[in-house]
Amino acid sequence: MKHEAERLARVALGRLAEPGDPRVASLVAELGAVTLYDHLRSQRDERGLLTDVAARLDGMDPAADLDRATRWGIRYLIPTDEEWPRQVDDLGRVEPVQQRGGPPLGLWVRGPLRLDQLAESVAIVGARSATTYGTQVAADLAAQVGSAGTGVVSGAAFGIDQAAHRGSLAMRAPSVSVLACGVDMAYPAAHRQLLDHLAEVGLVVSELGPGATPTRLRFLARNRLIAALTRGTVVVEAAVRSGALNTANWATRLNRCVLGVPGPVTSATSQGVHQLIRSGAATLVTTGAEVLELVGLAGEHVAPTLRGADRPRDRVSLRDQQVLDALPVARGLAADDVARVAGIGILEVRSALSRLQAVGLVDRDDRGWLLATPARA
Amino acid sequence: MKHEAERLARVALGRLAEPGDPRVASLVAELGAVTLYDHLRSQRDERGLLTDVAARLDGMDPAADLDRATRWGIRYLIPTDEEWPRQVDDLGRVEPVQQRGGPPLGLWVRGPLRLDQLAESVAIVGARSATTYGTQVAADLAAQVGSAGTGVVSGAAFGIDQAAHRGSLAMRAPSVSVLACGVDMAYPAAHRQLLDHLAEVGLVVSELGPGATPTRLRFLARNRLIAALTRGTVVVEAAVRSGALNTANWATRLNRCVLGVPGPVTSATSQGVHQLIRSGAATLVTTGAEVLELVGLAGEHVAPTLRGADRPRDRVSLRDQQVLDALPVARGLAADDVARVAGIGILEVRSALSRLQAVGLVDRDDRGWLLATPARA
Repeated sequence: MKHEAERLARVALGRLAEPGDPRVASLVAELGAVTLYDHLRSQRDERGLLTDVAARLDGMDPAADLDRATRWGIRYLIPTDEEWPRQVDDLGRVEPVQQRGGPPLGLWVRGPLRLDQLAESVAIVGARSATTYGTQVAADLAAQVGSAGTGVVSGAAFGIDQAAHRGSLAMRAPSVSVLACGVDMAYPAAHRQLLDHLAEVGLVVSELGPGATPTRLRFLARNRLIAALTRGTVVVEAAVRSGALNTANWATRLNRCVLGVPGPVTSATSQGVHQLIRSGAATLVTTGAEVLELVGLAGEHVAPTLRGADRPRDRVSLRDQQVLDALPVARGLAADDVARVAGIGILEVRSALSRLQAVGLVDRDDRGWLLATPARA
Repeated sequence: MKHEAERLARVALGRLAEPGDPRVASLVAELGAVTLYDHLRSQRDERGLLTDVAARLDGMDPAADLDRATRWGIRYLIPTDEEWPRQVDDLGRVEPVQQRGGPPLGLWVRGPLRLDQLAESVAIVGARSATTYGTQVAADLAAQVGSAGTGVVSGAAFGIDQAAHRGSLAMRAPSVSVLACGVDMAYPAAHRQLLDHLAEVGLVVSELGPGATPTRLRFLARNRLIAALTRGTVVVEAAVRSGALNTANWATRLNRCVLGVPGPVTSATSQGVHQLIRSGAATLVTTGAEVLELVGLAGEHVAPTLRGADRPRDRVSLRDQQVLDALPVARGLAADDVARVAGIGILEVRSALSRLQAVGLVDRDDRGWLLATPARA
């Protein structure tokens, strides 16, 4: 019963206050949700909170809210629930940014996945006005981490967010959208189908109750949840004022990885990412394997180091390469002349030529030594 | 006279040994160039050097080499000359890489600029098989640093090198090419005109005597000079095995700045640069101003921080923005309703609305308050 009183109080407080109000988080930590809600209902002001929420106190009915949500297939998680994602509690240990902060009171959730099993997911976020390059890279990254079973958390916005969901859905990997409105709402409206699909196979999450509409403030509050839910945040494209940089900032403050995908320096939608990398706030990544290496458990994922193709010359010592470089392509050269051109003594040149002939890199003709075909690459 | 004997000995040793042979550098530091040349001429071997160069001892005539070069408008600088670029002496303080290292014996120079006045120049290097994006960015960067009077050092190769020279020449800024062959040679042959132009208004430099042809080894030796001559090396495009990464490696070892220009992660010619940035070996740069800030004297150049355009909303407090976000666009809303939607007390909302009206962000109609046009941006 105590558990249910707590749940109802949190539903109510979530309706009354704006998400991420640091006063609410600290009052709940001090008094508990039940007492705080009682105080507000009995018109007892707490740090100006009653003044702000007074107009919303009329007609509160958290039990009816919960019933309706349950009928719509929406559950409401609070910190004492087994499914609660413990990693968001880290928000209680960092200072607010732009007057938003603190752990969520609770989380409204639609979808079949378990929210407590996303601790090793990554956030992929970025510009709404993304380029074709950006959406392609976001979808590829999401698919690459998804093929390793790693979930992707994003915001269902146009551009990078949508591409990230698309990429992870294509791999049937966990795809989770955290919204700045109710989980029953479609914002943007054009993404109704995407959100419904996410609710069928992934998760749609919000700290705002059903029916709530998005505002700028709520986007700022939402961004902290995307950062807190995941092991790291990948910013794919972001102009210098992109909201994705707010998510990256939260990830930094929460000691999560911040990763940035570079793009052409001539592209305005990459400028914000380039600033993050340049300032050292983000690590440059180019592939899903690199993302997994950086956010994964140590040793679990190691990105293959890129190397050029091996060439026959690579297996030859530097001194022997110097001999190779002295050899003509068309007509043979006497060993004495090879020694002079290479700037290496004749005895060493003779033994180098034998070694190189044995591995098929040099040939002889009637005049002397010349490069064999494989060495010309 | 002693000075001229030194010069002739260095010309001779430069003809005998391959450039950047660490044995030559250390023997010259120990014995002096004159004594070392005497030893070799009298068939006295020094650490296997005689064996390597024996075939080249016949017909040495450094005085004739110098005379001929002077007639061709080529000068030969040695460390005791006033025009000697002191910064290359740093090469005597770092270990060899791939059996190349040490300061040059001397430098052959064609062109009107003074080589001792390039200590604040930057190297711009990169792929020969550059993309249109890469060559455009290289030319822009060179022009941007050039317009601040900063010289550019590169290698006159196809691709990034050529674009870098083009950019600095367009700004009539110092443009310097360091070659892996004689300064009278054109490599690649298609750049004969570029090299002649550089010799007319800039500089063409090499540690190899006139007539010398390029080899792989000589390119590796040349790269250390490009890094040593400059304050920092900018890599614009480089595949994972590009020679530009060898130059960057020298710059790191010489405590010079290493800067990298990112590109699309889908471009193979940016992979080498991305690896440099990702590993922390290079700092990401996107503009000439950023390059100047990083290589320039402290405070001399400070790159402007990129910011988005200011919007009227930016000058409004977060709480007032919360009120703005609660306002409708089409039909006015009563202040009480604004307070409820915003989640802010009615008294604060009333004073916020007055403030926002005063700066033209909100309007009134017969029903109440609504957003003014400038606030809708």
